[in-house]
Amino acid sequence: MTPYTAPVREHRFVLEELLEHEVLSLPGFEEVGADLVEAVLEEAARLTGDVWAPLNASGDRQGCVRRDDGGVNVPDGFADAYRAYAEGGWNGIGVEQVHGGQGLPEVVASAVQEMLHGANMALGLCPMLTAGAIEALIQHGDEVLCERYLAPLVEGRWTGTMNLTEPQAGSDLSLVRTRAEPSGEDGVYRLTGQKIFITWGEHDCAENIVHLVLARLPDAPEGNKGISLFLVPKFLVDDDGAPGERNDVVCTALEHKMGIHGSPTCVLSFGEREGAIGYLVGEPGRGLNHMFTMMNAARHKVGIQGIGVAERACQQALAYARERRQGRRNGAECAIAEHLDVKRMLLSMRARTDALRALALTCAAQMDKARHAEEEETRQRAQARVDVLIPVVKAFSTDQAVEIASLGIQVHGGMGYIEETGAAQLLRDARIAPIYEGTNGIQALDLAGRKLGRDGGAALASLVDDVEATAAALAAREDLLALGESLAGGAADLRAAMAVVLEGGRDPEQGTDAIQAFATPFLSLVGHVLCAWQMGRAALVAEAALLDGSTDPFYHAKLAAADHALRHWLPIGRAQRAVIEAGVDRLARYAPDGD
Amino acid sequence: MTPYTAPVREHRFVLEELLEHEVLSLPGFEEVGADLVEAVLEEAARLTGDVWAPLNASGDRQGCVRRDDGGVNVPDGFADAYRAYAEGGWNGIGVEQVHGGQGLPEVVASAVQEMLHGANMALGLCPMLTAGAIEALIQHGDEVLCERYLAPLVEGRWTGTMNLTEPQAGSDLSLVRTRAEPSGEDGVYRLTGQKIFITWGEHDCAENIVHLVLARLPDAPEGNKGISLFLVPKFLVDDDGAPGERNDVVCTALEHKMGIHGSPTCVLSFGEREGAIGYLVGEPGRGLNHMFTMMNAARHKVGIQGIGVAERACQQALAYARERRQGRRNGAECAIAEHLDVKRMLLSMRARTDALRALALTCAAQMDKARHAEEEETRQRAQARVDVLIPVVKAFSTDQAVEIASLGIQVHGGMGYIEETGAAQLLRDARIAPIYEGTNGIQALDLAGRKLGRDGGAALASLVDDVEATAAALAAREDLLALGESLAGGAADLRAAMAVVLEGGRDPEQGTDAIQAFATPFLSLVGHVLCAWQMGRAALVAEAALLDGSTDPFYHAKLAAADHALRHWLPIGRAQRAVIEAGVDRLARYAPDGD
Repeated sequence: MTPYTAPVREHRFVLEELLEHEVLSLPGFEEVGADLVEAVLEEAARLTGDVWAPLNASGDRQGCVRRDDGGVNVPDGFADAYRAYAEGGWNGIGVEQVHGGQGLPEVVASAVQEMLHGANMALGLCPMLTAGAIEALIQHGDEVLCERYLAPLVEGRWTGTMNLTEPQAGSDLSLVRTRAEPSGEDGVYRLTGQKIFITWGEHDCAENIVHLVLARLPDAPEGNKGISLFLVPKFLVDDDGAPGERNDVVCTALEHKMGIHGSPTCVLSFGEREGAIGYLVGEPGRGLNHMFTMMNAARHKVGIQGIGVAERACQQALAYARERRQGRRNGAECAIAEHLDVKRMLLSMRARTDALRALALTCAAQMDKARHAEEEETRQRAQARVDVLIPVVKAFSTDQAVEIASLGIQVHGGMGYIEETGAAQLLRDARIAPIYEGTNGIQALDLAGRKLGRDGGAALASLVDDVEATAAALAAREDLLALGESLAGGAADLRAAMAVVLEGGRDPEQGTDAIQAFATPFLSLVGHVLCAWQMGRAALVAEAALLDGSTDPFYHAKLAAADHALRHWLPIGRAQRAVIEAGVDRLARYAPDGD
Repeated sequence: MTPYTAPVREHRFVLEELLEHEVLSLPGFEEVGADLVEAVLEEAARLTGDVWAPLNASGDRQGCVRRDDGGVNVPDGFADAYRAYAEGGWNGIGVEQVHGGQGLPEVVASAVQEMLHGANMALGLCPMLTAGAIEALIQHGDEVLCERYLAPLVEGRWTGTMNLTEPQAGSDLSLVRTRAEPSGEDGVYRLTGQKIFITWGEHDCAENIVHLVLARLPDAPEGNKGISLFLVPKFLVDDDGAPGERNDVVCTALEHKMGIHGSPTCVLSFGEREGAIGYLVGEPGRGLNHMFTMMNAARHKVGIQGIGVAERACQQALAYARERRQGRRNGAECAIAEHLDVKRMLLSMRARTDALRALALTCAAQMDKARHAEEEETRQRAQARVDVLIPVVKAFSTDQAVEIASLGIQVHGGMGYIEETGAAQLLRDARIAPIYEGTNGIQALDLAGRKLGRDGGAALASLVDDVEATAAALAAREDLLALGESLAGGAADLRAAMAVVLEGGRDPEQGTDAIQAFATPFLSLVGHVLCAWQMGRAALVAEAALLDGSTDPFYHAKLAAADHALRHWLPIGRAQRAVIEAGVDRLARYAPDGD
């Protein structure tokens, strides 16, 4: 099996050359220099390549086992690999220093996350969920909760979970039934109920697990507004901060999944005995809102996860295609990487992965600006862009990751279907990403409905302005003219489609129907255009470097990837305009047995 | 888990209403009436629904096990289900009566095959491979071999395999190394070598296994022309036709695959002791040619297989979406099938599956004509169409089947990722189909290179004539005008792209490069346009039925599926024209580390 090598050069290209380390000049990052960022990336490459990646296949084969005592054994080596990560201080790199973290920019933390997921997605989920718990506490926890729980979570000594889903409450969380009764003690509740699909809900890799749980107070109204957020630790915490008595929350089963076998997906039962002790986080009845503030970050991370797996698929397919000799080219036996149809697949995988990464890190840079920029107006503008970009990064990156992993199998031919090769695992692992943290359909509705509706498309339109500027810059260079024309066409298609979606949303007859029917094609169009934009920018940088005398073959490869993204990939996305313009009538009336 | 129900109504629609049972008037089918066809479909629906389908999930979970004695245990129930199939006479339905079969048309046999694969793809592979062996014997076996082996194969008492691949010889079979030495006895050889990826290469479901094996004679030249075809039985056959002594061919390992766990994929070792006894089939040095005549049929069957799995995915997703309640519509709780984004997925799955089926059965009807039509010219024209359609049916159906199965998972949300639901198995099973019997890249090269090159695109152009006729018929009906315009646009795109591919192929500078680079986008364009054509024809039939006073909701649903296929699916395929027109230069020069 091909070893995983973290793509440091690719990350440096995006951070240094595309984003020009712009975020490092923001207030709060005074101590973060380009050298430090480079050192962090190199160190993360070592951890992920040497420690995490070698456990990816064995973790898949071995999977997780629930013991009769309710404990869960994760695959051999995972606990040590997690410990190496936590003890290396990696868990807190993106957390602000005031909360015990290293306060590195989100762009840097995101690059490291991609490496973790590329190396071992199943294990990467553990700190990903912990990050959600940290975020929830920082934003909504009171002083007492933060005092007690934040430090061990940031240090990675304890891990976190998000307990949302119940059998009857998935995409529609208003149906949550788990109950929280006041215990008599102020701020302390007893929870009863069942949660499913709880990632890393039980394991022995850390001293304690901090569950963040959606539940209803006794007098709560029906629906969304009756849901509150609670913190339920696996072990209750003594006054000296040490894990003590076992709380009344147990893992009653593990799910048998298509992939991410190394990640325990638990059914958790709260309050089978006397009620699980939990503490209110934030305001009563605001649980969903509190959860959603976390979820934006989590959705970005799932997009990043897809990119990590896509990167690994690229590396593995390329290594196989270079080694496997089959057929002839110009009369001589050759590696299959020489055949143009295989080369086309390799280039398509690479171009898309590069583009998705550049977009996700561009989004991360806006997250940094939204938090750290001096001017309120700058922060707001950045946040508006983040709001539009998050559903795109989540849905488009993960949909594409599935396709890229599947192409990776195809490059392997028959060997791709054999589990020992490792290519199949990447598809099985990646396939969850379009589903969790809000299905990609939900992301599309979020983009085409809520996000577009609330500012009339202003934030997206301002992004399209930037796309057009890049298109013009490309068109001004003779050898990039064709790329510029294609990108300008994409921008025009996007504006036209946006007008249809906004119009449909305003139509009293169609309203939500129109948005629902258009949402997924629209997100696909936005994703293609914004990714092509990034590759257009990459082409400008690469061409400038070559004109400047660089002989680095990296820039030639980048130009080829940009050419593919703009002229062979973008046209497929642009076709979504025609899909949207074809209208929604038939679909709305469709009934599988006759409309 | 949703039970599988063979889509008899859909098959009857294609056979009776789209193809108008045209093949039943061909010479040789005098005894086959519409009633008989209907009875066959109904009976096949019972076998597949009641006997085969219930073993699909358990077969996946249990998988196959190689025993220490080299024998292979297939999953519980498979042997009985196979016996029910063989004893029901199903194995010979498509084989001509003179060879002991029932001599039903290929269109009918194909419909039944789809049901078998939809019910249980892993088990369906066993008779699929046997059909290849039967075809090889009929076309190339001498009287002695046919006398001895054909009847038990046609009856299904014995099964067949195709032994092509070796570790170093996959897509490029010229690299085959297995050797066949004359034994001294006329026509009898001793084979030594190793074959991999041998589907149903060893099992206990039948009395004997007939391996068809590519190998080299001692004096054979290098490359393709040195390869001959041999028949190697698992048990040597006595003069009375009964299986006797065990031949020197053993299963040394089973592959651990992503899916089709119920189908034993074997490593077979020939001649570990004294050489496996084999008999020459056809002419020495013509093994690859003989194999390729079989392969056309096998490729069509793999396409059909994809459609079977896609159909099952449609059924399962729809059943789940109707049952699962989540969210609200018009203020009331509703099943997720009511949400337009889910409905879009369901309609997309259904429209594509219908379209693929119609195209595959249209191809089967041409196969019937090519064999049975009175006039030589009619037969030749039909065969020319078959030659063009086969790679499209194989590659496009299987690529789409993977996408459809993946969409099926998405409709299930989180439950789709849980193996117990069964949706994930469909994707894992389907994922092999774009790989075996010639990867889809090989199919694309076959279409864009060999098939287009040898008649300058004449056969494909004549198909496009038919597409345009359908587009004109649609455009003549006011309410189908938009469909007609879309289809006419698709036909124009296809003609333009064909010109580019033919031109590129003729260019002495680009030559093979151009064809290789364009092949896959071109096949995708052809597939989209021909599938849309079929749905255009379906729309005309459905509209006529409704105008004729039918109140069958089936026709309304068919119109919706046609609308989706022509206006929401075809545009994505049409975008491949732009991809092809963007040219091949960059790709040809691309090197992953710089070009």
